[in-house]
Amino acid sequence: MNRKQLFQQIQKKKSFLCIGLDTDIEKIPPHLLQSEDPVFEFNRAIVDATHHLAVAYKPNLAFYESSGPSGWKSLGKTVDYIRSADPNIFLIADAKRGDIGNTSAMYAKTFFDTYDFDAVTLAPYMGFDTVAPFLAFEGKWSVVLALTSNKSAADFQYLRDNKSGNRLFESVLKTGRNWGSTDQLMFVVGATKAEALKEIRQITPDNFLLIPGIGAQGGSLEEVSNFGMNDHCGLLVNSSRGIIFASSGADFDKKAAESAESMRKEMEHHLRKKELV
Amino acid sequence: MNRKQLFQQIQKKKSFLCIGLDTDIEKIPPHLLQSEDPVFEFNRAIVDATHHLAVAYKPNLAFYESSGPSGWKSLGKTVDYIRSADPNIFLIADAKRGDIGNTSAMYAKTFFDTYDFDAVTLAPYMGFDTVAPFLAFEGKWSVVLALTSNKSAADFQYLRDNKSGNRLFESVLKTGRNWGSTDQLMFVVGATKAEALKEIRQITPDNFLLIPGIGAQGGSLEEVSNFGMNDHCGLLVNSSRGIIFASSGADFDKKAAESAESMRKEMEHHLRKKELV
Repeated sequence: MNRKQLFQQIQKKKSFLCIGLDTDIEKIPPHLLQSEDPVFEFNRAIVDATHHLAVAYKPNLAFYESSGPSGWKSLGKTVDYIRSADPNIFLIADAKRGDIGNTSAMYAKTFFDTYDFDAVTLAPYMGFDTVAPFLAFEGKWSVVLALTSNKSAADFQYLRDNKSGNRLFESVLKTGRNWGSTDQLMFVVGATKAEALKEIRQITPDNFLLIPGIGAQGGSLEEVSNFGMNDHCGLLVNSSRGIIFASSGADFDKKAAESAESMRKEMEHHLRKKELV
Repeated sequence: MNRKQLFQQIQKKKSFLCIGLDTDIEKIPPHLLQSEDPVFEFNRAIVDATHHLAVAYKPNLAFYESSGPSGWKSLGKTVDYIRSADPNIFLIADAKRGDIGNTSAMYAKTFFDTYDFDAVTLAPYMGFDTVAPFLAFEGKWSVVLALTSNKSAADFQYLRDNKSGNRLFESVLKTGRNWGSTDQLMFVVGATKAEALKEIRQITPDNFLLIPGIGAQGGSLEEVSNFGMNDHCGLLVNSSRGIIFASSGADFDKKAAESAESMRKEMEHHLRKKELV
């Protein structure tokens, strides 16, 4: 999927919502725990209830890995199910991998070949060598961490380079934007740093940004839209717990859909304001 | 395992060798491919042939993940087999994970609970929040990337902070060394940067360092030992392909043992020079 096709999906659904599948077995409604694969059954119900409201899903790998081989089976079934529910959904593996050479190539194979993801989140610490093997896959995306919304992001991301004057996250954006085209490179920017989005849009006016931290982590959709939206939207805003765990009861899928629709509606409002739909 | 116990293993085996299990199915000798789990059979033969020569094994997660659930099964069997071959072997998951909060906690659960690793490699980009959940496991280790040996390490790791004057990898070491004790924190330093080890030992005199890049990537064991060894050795030097793929034939385990013994012997020489054995 390229940037234009992703924008078309956003226009069609009037939504730039990404739903994070951080499917924690401890939080799954009790009635699902009797099934053979509760994680998959939970995801299936969430996808059935929300796939018309979201343009992307983002399984969080940690929650699948922690169960070992059976978790990876649930992941594979989830990916296949989402593809069958809507072949045009954008599928992000939130894996934050970051290695080099033949190791990085193996990670790319995992997410683009073994599993049919469109995109993978990557950590930039080791530089271009981490991203290069992912860029070699046509039609696939690398989503590089730039500015994150956690407290200790300040440990290193704000250090200012004495030559260029750039803070580390700006260096990542300025160096990283040249690694590939805007059809294959996205950056992660935390929603709680909405004011930083203004500067970030100066550096990367055309790249899609993946924005976590709306809702549970306190970010504002309005600010993110005001500061971050470009002429092809350029935003995927993620919500995980606020949607998938909106209810812990048997109505979890219904409540997830309500929560997703409420975000989608606000997104439609912001897309209309910019005359993008 | 604490730092003292790790040093005792080094003294006992007169070795600070870590063998990287980057078990690439494409490079496994053909006669093993008929078995039900060729990756595990390969690892088992390598472990049988080398566990008296090495103090640590480091499975590289990418090579297991790329096969999906069956790869994670091979990993689990490998971990159990190494534990049964020598319960005092130090087991490192080379995963380079780097996330925060409940996601990071799930990754810690994966490697310390679901799988019985002693240590996990971690990327520092998101700061302390990435490492904290791993440090909560007593007797377990976080191995934080500091200075890597790949070409594009220079993209960001050498940027110099205008306040402290530290390059990024020095900031990671100076901030990171305070995250936990020297019984739970190690740093990754590439062997091709041996001259940097002198400065790094000024910053972290007591932490163990995990050193990849000897052999295939061109680092020198002599330089690493001269610049990096401290009074409890403080080094785990990794070799992967140079040992496990020393031969592509039926004698691969025998050749792996020869290659490992040749490194161990040189290590013994350096340990004796420092009067540590």
